[in-house]
Amino acid sequence: MKLDKLVGERFKERPSDCMVDSHALMVRGGYMKYVANGIFSQYMPLKRITRKIEQIIREEMDAIDGQEVLFPVVMPATLWQESGRYESIGKELVRFADRSGSPLVLGMTHEEAAVQLVREYAQSYQKYPFMIYQIQTKFRDEARPKSGLIRVREFTMKDAYSFHTSQEDLEQYYDKCHKAYERIFARAGIPEVVSVASDSGMMGGSISHEFMLLTDIGEDSIAICSECDYRANMEAAENIIDYVRTMPSEDLKKVHTPSQRTIEEVCSYLGAEPKNSCKAVVYQRNIDDKYIVLFLRGDLEVNETKLTNYLGFDIHPATITEDSPIVAGFIGPMGLEGDMMVLYDHSLKDMNNLVCGANETDYHYTGLDMARDVKNAEYHDFAKIQQGGICPKCGKHSITVSRGIEVGNIFQLGVKYSKAMNMTYIDSEGNSQYPIMGCYGIGVGRLAAAVCEVHHDDYGPIWPKAIAPWQVHLCAVRSDNEEVKNFANNLYEQLLAKGVEVIYDDRNVSAGIMFSDADLLGVPYRVIVSPRNLGQNVVEIVSRDKTLKTTVPMGSALDEILKLI
Amino acid sequence: MKLDKLVGERFKERPSDCMVDSHALMVRGGYMKYVANGIFSQYMPLKRITRKIEQIIREEMDAIDGQEVLFPVVMPATLWQESGRYESIGKELVRFADRSGSPLVLGMTHEEAAVQLVREYAQSYQKYPFMIYQIQTKFRDEARPKSGLIRVREFTMKDAYSFHTSQEDLEQYYDKCHKAYERIFARAGIPEVVSVASDSGMMGGSISHEFMLLTDIGEDSIAICSECDYRANMEAAENIIDYVRTMPSEDLKKVHTPSQRTIEEVCSYLGAEPKNSCKAVVYQRNIDDKYIVLFLRGDLEVNETKLTNYLGFDIHPATITEDSPIVAGFIGPMGLEGDMMVLYDHSLKDMNNLVCGANETDYHYTGLDMARDVKNAEYHDFAKIQQGGICPKCGKHSITVSRGIEVGNIFQLGVKYSKAMNMTYIDSEGNSQYPIMGCYGIGVGRLAAAVCEVHHDDYGPIWPKAIAPWQVHLCAVRSDNEEVKNFANNLYEQLLAKGVEVIYDDRNVSAGIMFSDADLLGVPYRVIVSPRNLGQNVVEIVSRDKTLKTTVPMGSALDEILKLI
Repeated sequence: MKLDKLVGERFKERPSDCMVDSHALMVRGGYMKYVANGIFSQYMPLKRITRKIEQIIREEMDAIDGQEVLFPVVMPATLWQESGRYESIGKELVRFADRSGSPLVLGMTHEEAAVQLVREYAQSYQKYPFMIYQIQTKFRDEARPKSGLIRVREFTMKDAYSFHTSQEDLEQYYDKCHKAYERIFARAGIPEVVSVASDSGMMGGSISHEFMLLTDIGEDSIAICSECDYRANMEAAENIIDYVRTMPSEDLKKVHTPSQRTIEEVCSYLGAEPKNSCKAVVYQRNIDDKYIVLFLRGDLEVNETKLTNYLGFDIHPATITEDSPIVAGFIGPMGLEGDMMVLYDHSLKDMNNLVCGANETDYHYTGLDMARDVKNAEYHDFAKIQQGGICPKCGKHSITVSRGIEVGNIFQLGVKYSKAMNMTYIDSEGNSQYPIMGCYGIGVGRLAAAVCEVHHDDYGPIWPKAIAPWQVHLCAVRSDNEEVKNFANNLYEQLLAKGVEVIYDDRNVSAGIMFSDADLLGVPYRVIVSPRNLGQNVVEIVSRDKTLKTTVPMGSALDEILKLI
Repeated sequence: MKLDKLVGERFKERPSDCMVDSHALMVRGGYMKYVANGIFSQYMPLKRITRKIEQIIREEMDAIDGQEVLFPVVMPATLWQESGRYESIGKELVRFADRSGSPLVLGMTHEEAAVQLVREYAQSYQKYPFMIYQIQTKFRDEARPKSGLIRVREFTMKDAYSFHTSQEDLEQYYDKCHKAYERIFARAGIPEVVSVASDSGMMGGSISHEFMLLTDIGEDSIAICSECDYRANMEAAENIIDYVRTMPSEDLKKVHTPSQRTIEEVCSYLGAEPKNSCKAVVYQRNIDDKYIVLFLRGDLEVNETKLTNYLGFDIHPATITEDSPIVAGFIGPMGLEGDMMVLYDHSLKDMNNLVCGANETDYHYTGLDMARDVKNAEYHDFAKIQQGGICPKCGKHSITVSRGIEVGNIFQLGVKYSKAMNMTYIDSEGNSQYPIMGCYGIGVGRLAAAVCEVHHDDYGPIWPKAIAPWQVHLCAVRSDNEEVKNFANNLYEQLLAKGVEVIYDDRNVSAGIMFSDADLLGVPYRVIVSPRNLGQNVVEIVSRDKTLKTTVPMGSALDEILKLI
């Protein structure tokens, strides 16, 4: 391919709307173009990268007996009604009607389609286990697409679905897939990806893992233990409390706290610490605006995913009006009345001598003893784990909270979909059973962007060989020089004849322009043919990652290049 | 791959809802599964076939300097408003709104996206020519999907767009692409595909060709000259009229024709021939129901695409009510009054002594002389060419009308999209110009189905090597026999080690079941290991197309198979 004809613009200035480097470099390098919010077109260099990533994924899925299939992008709503997700998923699921008025959806994931495809086939235990996967376009109507290819609305994804007759078999396969994922990320050039225990969210099921590339620009927070191998995303990381009551309980006392509404204000006013207070956070159920009051220790924050998972329905932060049964800023567990749901975080369990609201404007209590004063409270884990928190595995105060990009995920789904969609098989004893499922996803474009995030410099991406759009970037500096032109043309043809992926820059432009374009394309090896080099009978070879910078005799240039790649 | 684990059902009975063989065989063979009207999932065998077709297409597009890119499936309506197609295309274009209410469409073709991708890049004549293409999912809300993969709503398509600075350059490239298409169809196993001149329809532009696989189950009609190389689809085939007036004109005479409404009734009643009558066909404009009356020779039929292209707007067959200015069954050119558009097919030009309606219930005229009585008529070609009609190229009465499946199309678009979307470049003289475009499509799934239509027998598809899901179908007949099992297992491993695509049937089932499954999978070579064969120290090799049936010594089986494929 001649660079001269490569469609796409390359330029120096960082676009002002690009918050992360991968986005900026991919726009500057002519990899992608904005079409609409969270929707991009891909130019040839990116398409070549994503095709290589897809091929790596395909090979690794085939190696664990995956069968490549294809599900539709557009599915009938009836299929999603079977699983219940047509109702339970929010606006991310695009719903529309066809010309005859039949409701359809755009696929954002394909559990339903997978079950539909194999439901009649897999009616005997002898057909199990099996795994089917596809690599295809998906659409998820994200509220806030951002960061280029990292959070988009339309994306290409590999999604795989496995079917089993026992939990043990699923777990074995899950582990196999976990290892395949490690190989995929290593082959794509990011072996540093780690897997973290995660919450399964809307996918259902129990055990699941996210594969995280740790980087400060990541959108996800991960709790990592610096003392053991514990890693979990924030939703899955249990916030361990090691509170032991040491002080005797004071009496409950109502105190006047005029206009002191936030925990910080009240505690400061009363000379207490936030960790000795009982804070209220109020939500409302989406469906009917019913109030949900959650009490937790004053120094902690709510993890809303934990809360939503516990509740099983969608919520939003509450709007408290004059006629609500709630006195904003003065909410406490004592004497709270009205139609609402009240929850307690386990950080409060057994605590005493707490400050809390008195459910009366300008009044709080001191001396709250949870065991004595709130007798019927049930405690659950709703709070975010914190930096320096206790590791749920080794028990040390060794938790650090890092940021990461999720580049893949695997889920043990259990029988959620097979049961809802009435997929059964006859086991070896003649009984009807629901198959146990796993599902396994990787976003192709996000993976490309993640690689770019960790493999780039100020001048452009530094693509790992396995996914680079080309292997060799041949520069004919001063292509108006006959000798340069002839030698470079000849080398280009020889490389092509050897099947080398080469991008050839024979434009009559300055070396500066050539090299900055080459930096933006991030090809592993740059081969420079110039009058000066040829004058010394050599050709220069420079690696994009700067670990190699050498000259080789003109006559052995081809061989040397072939050796490198 | 072991057949035992191949996901998908195979069965004998032809499904009653399958009208064409490719559909029936692909359902019976576990290639595809119905999800919704015109929407299917693909099992592994079909996915392997379509991937191979895609790779052939990719190689041929790359060979004519195509650059593979990716456009979005979901596009903003604004992009289609720029070209005007958001309004001009009917319900086939799926329109919906995202969570914020912004209108979006599902891509059914990507001219707009192609222009959007390169509009800023290609602002100088030096960037031209170039071609970009993608292979991707598209959705077209067809009113009547049918025939399995031949007419669907969701499909995978290769669509390519070329950009040029002159018509000559476009034509050169168009011809190159025409040849690439011939190579693609030949490589996919259907070299018999012919290109026919076609109407450009909603794509705009002028010259275009469809690539047709001639088969009786085809949905399209094609006019083919048996004497020269003329081929055109019905919309593009001019209906040549060689009428020469030989009889003197009679006087116009109003005759009583009680209840004789159709041309056949009237002509029979009056003892005339339909070809000596002037027939009226009435339509209404979609937008406002305005009447359009088209007169043509009584023995001809209207080609509605020709008519729509002439009009430039959409129409439907008229509903004639009591208060219309039209007397159904008695319509004629003389004295026709009211708010309507009147058109004349050129079959009527210069004719005389015609029967026609008198615009009065139960009355017709005889002796109509178009030249004398309908002075201001303009004549155009609106009628269908007919079997035995005159070839527009060689002039002989040598037209046959055949049916075919359209497996590809190429269009010279001109400046329709570049102009509408204001894409310009500066030419070598400093003037601003609109680039001239071509576009080139192939439906991947339809191509697979088309190959199946012409390459199958009653028992299953007969896949050409280049697109077959596997190359070798290894059958271990009586796999409970130790010798069979060991030899077949060993051969399977050896074939895999050599990189041969092999599907291995080691189920303990009858040879009959094995062979009927093998027929349905249509793999080119079947290798049979059985106790009887091994008893004679041989392995049997049979080709799916029945041209080969041989035995080879056990020891040389591997080599013989490698030679064949």
